[in-house]
Amino acid sequence: MFSEENAKLGVTYPKGFVAAGIKAGIKKSGNLDLALIYTEKEAALAGTFTQNKVAAAPVLYDREVVATGSGHAIIANAGCANACTGEQGMKDAREMAAVTAEALGCKADDVIVGSTGIIGVNLPMEKINAGIKRIVGELSETGSDNASRAIMTTDTKQKACAGSMTLGGKEVRFGAICKGSGMIRPNMATMLCYITTDAAITAEMLQKAVSNAVEYSFNMVSVDGDMSTNDSCVCLANGEAGNPIIDSDNDDYKAFAAKLKEICIGMAMRMADDGEGATKLITVNVKGAQSFAEAKKTAMSVAQSPLVKTAFFGEDPNWGRVICAVGYADAPMVPEKTVVSFGDVVVFDKGLGARFDEEHLRQVMEQHDITVTVELGLGEAEATVWTCDFSYEYVKINGEYHT
Amino acid sequence: MFSEENAKLGVTYPKGFVAAGIKAGIKKSGNLDLALIYTEKEAALAGTFTQNKVAAAPVLYDREVVATGSGHAIIANAGCANACTGEQGMKDAREMAAVTAEALGCKADDVIVGSTGIIGVNLPMEKINAGIKRIVGELSETGSDNASRAIMTTDTKQKACAGSMTLGGKEVRFGAICKGSGMIRPNMATMLCYITTDAAITAEMLQKAVSNAVEYSFNMVSVDGDMSTNDSCVCLANGEAGNPIIDSDNDDYKAFAAKLKEICIGMAMRMADDGEGATKLITVNVKGAQSFAEAKKTAMSVAQSPLVKTAFFGEDPNWGRVICAVGYADAPMVPEKTVVSFGDVVVFDKGLGARFDEEHLRQVMEQHDITVTVELGLGEAEATVWTCDFSYEYVKINGEYHT
Repeated sequence: MFSEENAKLGVTYPKGFVAAGIKAGIKKSGNLDLALIYTEKEAALAGTFTQNKVAAAPVLYDREVVATGSGHAIIANAGCANACTGEQGMKDAREMAAVTAEALGCKADDVIVGSTGIIGVNLPMEKINAGIKRIVGELSETGSDNASRAIMTTDTKQKACAGSMTLGGKEVRFGAICKGSGMIRPNMATMLCYITTDAAITAEMLQKAVSNAVEYSFNMVSVDGDMSTNDSCVCLANGEAGNPIIDSDNDDYKAFAAKLKEICIGMAMRMADDGEGATKLITVNVKGAQSFAEAKKTAMSVAQSPLVKTAFFGEDPNWGRVICAVGYADAPMVPEKTVVSFGDVVVFDKGLGARFDEEHLRQVMEQHDITVTVELGLGEAEATVWTCDFSYEYVKINGEYHT
Repeated sequence: MFSEENAKLGVTYPKGFVAAGIKAGIKKSGNLDLALIYTEKEAALAGTFTQNKVAAAPVLYDREVVATGSGHAIIANAGCANACTGEQGMKDAREMAAVTAEALGCKADDVIVGSTGIIGVNLPMEKINAGIKRIVGELSETGSDNASRAIMTTDTKQKACAGSMTLGGKEVRFGAICKGSGMIRPNMATMLCYITTDAAITAEMLQKAVSNAVEYSFNMVSVDGDMSTNDSCVCLANGEAGNPIIDSDNDDYKAFAAKLKEICIGMAMRMADDGEGATKLITVNVKGAQSFAEAKKTAMSVAQSPLVKTAFFGEDPNWGRVICAVGYADAPMVPEKTVVSFGDVVVFDKGLGARFDEEHLRQVMEQHDITVTVELGLGEAEATVWTCDFSYEYVKINGEYHT
């Protein structure tokens, strides 16, 4: 469904989209740091942004743009987050959109602006404006790869995907690029995710699909419990596929929304897998809860426990820490009804440590991907959260990164 | 007020209390691992226990004992938490109390039982019963020092204190021993705190004073966001001081409660300072909130952020991470009204990064004790939380500790 070949095409896989990534001199490293995604045909626009009360200037600006329901472009830089920058920051975000719009021949409120990097520093607007003028000339149908590199900060892996589905007899394509590895937590993080599709869909239904997809993907990832000032998930749908326009909660909508959710879950898992210093991808699956909200609280409690995460780093099957985190979650649990498994090995069985094959459990703990399943035995609801382990490298990255 | 000399006397500083600590063979290390505190004169008894739904057997048992309002003894072991041990665990906790009571000549429901250590393993009852018979013969007025060592697990420092005050013309003494360094978080943790006093006070007023003291001390400490199955804070008050019995919310009660709170805050700070792998003690003081609960939420959000904690480990004045954690706390904040200081240096001033003397700030960050002050500018309430930094050593201790 999602081929690795197409992943490189990313946001340019859907018809009518071009992209580019260039070196504008914003990152100290001199790496790619400015990305542009563009559709000549006007696209329906939807987005979900950080719930942090200290939202960065580009987020404040983008909320206005998303409210218009349509757009043509996304301009994003790495190296500077344009957060905690007050009025100057808002002015810079607006200027970044206006300069992009002028270069592309659209309106400023057709342009989404993204920034990620250091907080509290103003954007180097000379470099950004010069970069924008240059990047427009670089736009191409193979530019997604550079665009995805240009938004990376502490990411160690590029994150992109592409895929397609059939709607009303037409092939509808999707592509996405994403960045994020530190400060990842529920309700989004220093995460930028840009999704393109050539589906025909109204802005209202697109927003509904994006909000739903984010709820079950990016909001279910936790690396370290922090939520950033800048995270954004934005989707442009330009209708080039020629499918019957999705304007109600019909079967096409349901299929489209399911596909968008699948894309976002894939990207969310890659973010957890690329958590700062991560050596393992941990999936926490809580079943048998009385509601999704309670299942999520329990799963997050386990996924955010530093004691659980360091135990997985040490490949230690320390179920005591897991059951402890289940016990202090703000959700009902009864030890005598609870079963905890690591992989396919039951480690805690209704109030007591279980007898298990130690050698088999050791093999489970040595895997890169480990699933922790918590069966609460209280209801039918479930939730899945993705996280990573907590390593020396995490401390190194975050303790030695100097402002 | 609290002399270091008297600290060694700890729980035996108040009149009528004796204590002991011995090697019962429970810890693999062979160190002291069984502690006993005893007052021949019956004492008023109060306690506060973990809110974890997976409460250990001794906690379940102790809640019954505290409900009687009186007691004579506390028997506690380290090396095995007697948690997740089901019916056998309850049987063992009761037996531990019964054997102690028999050896001391009191009733089983006069004996508080404490356990800390590995989860999911049954108590070695032969060793414990033999140890209890032996420890009774070791009780002395200088036994607090050994008792405090015997309850340590990953603690690197002993935690004990002693002090006195005057009530109704009589000297009233207090002593405490405490353990806890990992799994420390609000609502208590793998923390055992035993407080003795020779004050005359009713069980009801004692419980009120203990609950209040815990709320502003142990519940305000966060090391890693985890809350254990075993934490307990228990106080015995035997009345030997001869002060007029405190049986209402009078001035003597207020003075007594203030002293108890002061003792608990002192012990709580020592726990944060001895957080696993800690190199710094960080005090997060949130002022200008609309309520204590909201101030606490904001302070905890900062104190529990791994990004903030690793930055302090790296002595990096990364105020972006602090303001970010303030922004995602589940409490009101307005960036344009918020001021953040590290020590006496303002780093974030009403929406913008502040200009500061970098050399002076560097000196602040090099200190062992660092205070982060967040002024929200919304009201009059405040809260103080204590935490520590996040180091390589934390990962080492918790990643390499094998079950």
